[in-house]
Amino acid sequence: MKRFLLKIEYDGTQFVGWQRQTNGLGVQEVIENAVEQLSNEKVFVQCAGRTDSGVHALGQAAHFDLSQDWEPNKLRDGINYYLKKFDVSIIKAHQVDKTFNARFNAIQRSYEYLILNRRPPAAINRGKVWWVPVKLDTNVMQQAGRILVGKHDFSTFRASECQSRSPIKTLDKLTITNDGDQIRIIVSARSFLYHQVRNMVGTLRLVGEKKWTLERFESAFDARDRSRGGPTAPACGLYFTDVKYV
Amino acid sequence: MKRFLLKIEYDGTQFVGWQRQTNGLGVQEVIENAVEQLSNEKVFVQCAGRTDSGVHALGQAAHFDLSQDWEPNKLRDGINYYLKKFDVSIIKAHQVDKTFNARFNAIQRSYEYLILNRRPPAAINRGKVWWVPVKLDTNVMQQAGRILVGKHDFSTFRASECQSRSPIKTLDKLTITNDGDQIRIIVSARSFLYHQVRNMVGTLRLVGEKKWTLERFESAFDARDRSRGGPTAPACGLYFTDVKYV
Repeated sequence: MKRFLLKIEYDGTQFVGWQRQTNGLGVQEVIENAVEQLSNEKVFVQCAGRTDSGVHALGQAAHFDLSQDWEPNKLRDGINYYLKKFDVSIIKAHQVDKTFNARFNAIQRSYEYLILNRRPPAAINRGKVWWVPVKLDTNVMQQAGRILVGKHDFSTFRASECQSRSPIKTLDKLTITNDGDQIRIIVSARSFLYHQVRNMVGTLRLVGEKKWTLERFESAFDARDRSRGGPTAPACGLYFTDVKYV
Repeated sequence: MKRFLLKIEYDGTQFVGWQRQTNGLGVQEVIENAVEQLSNEKVFVQCAGRTDSGVHALGQAAHFDLSQDWEPNKLRDGINYYLKKFDVSIIKAHQVDKTFNARFNAIQRSYEYLILNRRPPAAINRGKVWWVPVKLDTNVMQQAGRILVGKHDFSTFRASECQSRSPIKTLDKLTITNDGDQIRIIVSARSFLYHQVRNMVGTLRLVGEKKWTLERFESAFDARDRSRGGPTAPACGLYFTDVKYV
């Protein structure tokens, strides 16, 4: 058996999420089908981090096994040929060690969250950004963001469906930058709780529009209680951008 | 009568182009309908430059008349309310002089053309870029582009359906920049011939992939003959970005 690792870009709009499901099309399913059409082998594709319906990826990673040898670029191009109908593209393929695991070997995952912060709604980027029509103060959002960096109990930002054993995570990075009307929030951590990024962003927004003071933000975070956090930001602004391996 | 000028963003994918047509939905039609629903007045919306099916806009301009007074931001928000179903957004509205004409008063129009230059196809930006899988040399494209700047006969890049009186136009600017996998071609002129930008881009691509030498490019341009030019680049990479008025 040879094991291959893929770097994958997708537009999450048309998918029920990464995972194969019965109520719609999963990204996993269309990639597994494409690999099977190409190789005539049945595969299971294991990703680094499952994404929800509507969440996009610029750099999802996933591995799978084939019995045959493949030149990695030919494998990539072959899978892309069978993905033509879908908004999914294999950016890179390479062969990895048989013990490599795209999920368990990941030492850091990075996401970006895009906010279109202007009064007129999105046209070009509809479904690719969160449209927030009220003016946000990114300086105060940045100050709030700094509180989150480091090792903390993130229960305030943890969805009830979260299956993680512990609510304690280490947030390596959270930066907020402006580019015209667009606000970009970049986060990195070894792993995240379920909906953690979207819940952090939804709460940072309240600080940005001055509905919440920094003090309220900090006390909500300290409370370790989801009911004290802000709403979940929509899926469409979220991008899984990168995975790091040792 | 009050005359209003709009700045408009749209995703051209779902439209037959700017102009109202019987074979599908035009951007003009959805804006006219939105204004009519808001104001109960029948309007004709005159744009600065008509775009083809699939061509996008970040800064199209258009004017129309209303008998009633409107606060410009209320007008913008009201039109956007009735545009909700469509990938069209009014970025700005303001009142202009009764003699102002969005088309005839324009002194410069700017377009951008986006190429995704990588082997894997577009996923996130599908329909928003021209996917060119063979590596392009932007330095040599830039050299070719420089030949086009200035006052010239652009017949080599003129579509046969063009209704312009003269093939002589003055290209104020053509720049080509790289940002990772993305190539951005920016052009400005008082006006362009029909399909001029897409024909220039389609021909520059031939130079970029070294199918054509600079000499061949120059002699094709000098021939003033459409049959000597390269193919028309697809609509989906083209954005109408800006219009300047005196």
